[in-house]
Amino acid sequence: MIYLDNSATTFPKPKNVYDDVMDCMKNYAANPGRGSYDMAIKAAHKVTETREAIAKLFNISDLFNVIFTSSATEALNIGIKGFLKRRDHVITTYMEHNSVLRPISYLKKRGIEVSIVKADQYGFVNPQTIEGMIKDNTKLIVINHVSNVTGTIQNIDEIGEIAHKNGISFMVDAAQSAGVLNIDVEKSNIDMLAFAGHKGLFGPQGTGALYIREGIKLTEFKSGGTGSNSFSVEQPEFLPDRFESGTLNTPGIVGMNAGINFINSIGIRNIAKHEMELTRYLISNLKNKDYVKLYGPELNNRGAVVSFNIDGIDSSDVAAILNVKGICVRNGYHCAPLVHEIIGTKNKGTVRVSPGYFNTIEDIDKLIEALIEINKGKI
Amino acid sequence: MIYLDNSATTFPKPKNVYDDVMDCMKNYAANPGRGSYDMAIKAAHKVTETREAIAKLFNISDLFNVIFTSSATEALNIGIKGFLKRRDHVITTYMEHNSVLRPISYLKKRGIEVSIVKADQYGFVNPQTIEGMIKDNTKLIVINHVSNVTGTIQNIDEIGEIAHKNGISFMVDAAQSAGVLNIDVEKSNIDMLAFAGHKGLFGPQGTGALYIREGIKLTEFKSGGTGSNSFSVEQPEFLPDRFESGTLNTPGIVGMNAGINFINSIGIRNIAKHEMELTRYLISNLKNKDYVKLYGPELNNRGAVVSFNIDGIDSSDVAAILNVKGICVRNGYHCAPLVHEIIGTKNKGTVRVSPGYFNTIEDIDKLIEALIEINKGKI
Repeated sequence: MIYLDNSATTFPKPKNVYDDVMDCMKNYAANPGRGSYDMAIKAAHKVTETREAIAKLFNISDLFNVIFTSSATEALNIGIKGFLKRRDHVITTYMEHNSVLRPISYLKKRGIEVSIVKADQYGFVNPQTIEGMIKDNTKLIVINHVSNVTGTIQNIDEIGEIAHKNGISFMVDAAQSAGVLNIDVEKSNIDMLAFAGHKGLFGPQGTGALYIREGIKLTEFKSGGTGSNSFSVEQPEFLPDRFESGTLNTPGIVGMNAGINFINSIGIRNIAKHEMELTRYLISNLKNKDYVKLYGPELNNRGAVVSFNIDGIDSSDVAAILNVKGICVRNGYHCAPLVHEIIGTKNKGTVRVSPGYFNTIEDIDKLIEALIEINKGKI
Repeated sequence: MIYLDNSATTFPKPKNVYDDVMDCMKNYAANPGRGSYDMAIKAAHKVTETREAIAKLFNISDLFNVIFTSSATEALNIGIKGFLKRRDHVITTYMEHNSVLRPISYLKKRGIEVSIVKADQYGFVNPQTIEGMIKDNTKLIVINHVSNVTGTIQNIDEIGEIAHKNGISFMVDAAQSAGVLNIDVEKSNIDMLAFAGHKGLFGPQGTGALYIREGIKLTEFKSGGTGSNSFSVEQPEFLPDRFESGTLNTPGIVGMNAGINFINSIGIRNIAKHEMELTRYLISNLKNKDYVKLYGPELNNRGAVVSFNIDGIDSSDVAAILNVKGICVRNGYHCAPLVHEIIGTKNKGTVRVSPGYFNTIEDIDKLIEALIEINKGKI
């Protein structure tokens, strides 16, 4: 079986992730931050260690500004819905996932003004276009760092600079980039960074996190027990407790930590280098086939996500035949509806291949071979 | 090490839970409901199997009315915040956890009317008192099934009957009872049932669920990608997708399923019987000690949670000394502030012991012995 759906969730995970998750579950999966006995303290300590590892990875100065969530989607909901108030204006883009578009659509019905910026045919959003849309009531710019459809990498440094210069908060959806690209919240002027734990960070599903810059005030999201201020029926104001009601996913968080340890041991550059070698190899091999229509940037400013179609065959059929051949890829709209207006795939979606660190050139060769056969088979 | 904090999270888990979680992580932890390849289909199938197991356990007729959450707290937030509208009246009780009181406090500031019903000294809420508080705009009654402080079991059959008779929706917080007591949503007229996966159901942390009766309409909570209606920026209306945005915690859900399989193999009655034997044994041994003040019901209508104090010693000191002796218990307010007004522990909290299925009479003997020593040591 060749797994090429790493944009959805990375698979497999590094061995130390499996080991550490199981060690936690079997030996110290108490409720962190609640009990004063050794096992609960160990659980709490491991959670803090993970917070620290995340802070270090993204150059976050205070680890308590990192809150754990159950997914990137939850992190985006906390940030977007918690930040925007009636009559605020938010700028986002056609390249967003529904985890951004749907919270924004929810807010639009509740009196928030929305501008959605188009992209060029490769998926690049022009930072100047964003700047041109800024109004007096613009409070937030939300952009996806790397597209989960086209792999397009946005220029978050320049957009962050524009936001900062204009006194607007800047939120980055790093679902596809955390753990693969260098992200520095200071350098890129990022006020909120949302990401999953189970994608580039190699943790288990059910994990994610949100960085909230000091001074950014968000409405509470999940209200409830935090193990702190227990005698009050009011949600605590301070981070991380304000957004961590309910028992944390301790084994999942421990798995994220193990994933980050793995990344640090390999080096984030080496992970990106390997994934990009596979991606470039795939693109180079597909671009000279006249029956393949590739979407997104060619070789530069892109991540390891490749979308394409084969002339005359539905993307779902391509994915289904690849499945029979033991190759796992995705097809359809990938929960990012507006991207398809940009790349012209509104009626058909795309076949999406997302190689990961554990894939090899041989995996890509087998995929290419299978695609050649599929094309032959259509006649 | 003797673990007696099963009200916070059960520990250890049955062996098949560890095995099934790891099997999922290593072999089929794809994104369920998103891909059409075998691994993603297996993941989706396992999620459905768990939904079915939950539906069967609580006599829920349609498995799609069960939605997965990351905790009982999230389930309660989805239900409470999603259901109540400005000017609605909600009735709840002094016995609630902050996972109910804090969402309700959040809504109170947003124009929802709230009545909080007192309980007697044992923690029992009189259903007639609830009935007496019903007004024209009463839309919801929320009650905790088993107190996480006193173990008090509320008469949900009678309260459900009152709610039903008056056309009011009825929500039960089953955080402490799911997997230990028989719960039948039809028999008890329950419209929303919230519970954790990592307590009585023996799943891993990071899991929970909410049953939503057909016809109950809730505002969306986490908006985002669902793998369905992908081409729309609107959150789907149908269950379970409406409330399951973002990648599900597949290994966690598989672990819940394994936990329910374990419960079914032992029999829920046998689990309750064992836990109650330990609880009754503990209470019988503590109640004749004049330096021990016990809270909650004596032996009937109670679950396996025992709160007490030792005269002249702070609850935190008791827990700390027990920890040194290798016994894990909780102290403090247990995230349920108002209960302490009922039982008279506003200034000190309680020591809380919560035996689980894997505890033995010997564990309880060692605890009692340690408490005797602690009392001797204070002089």
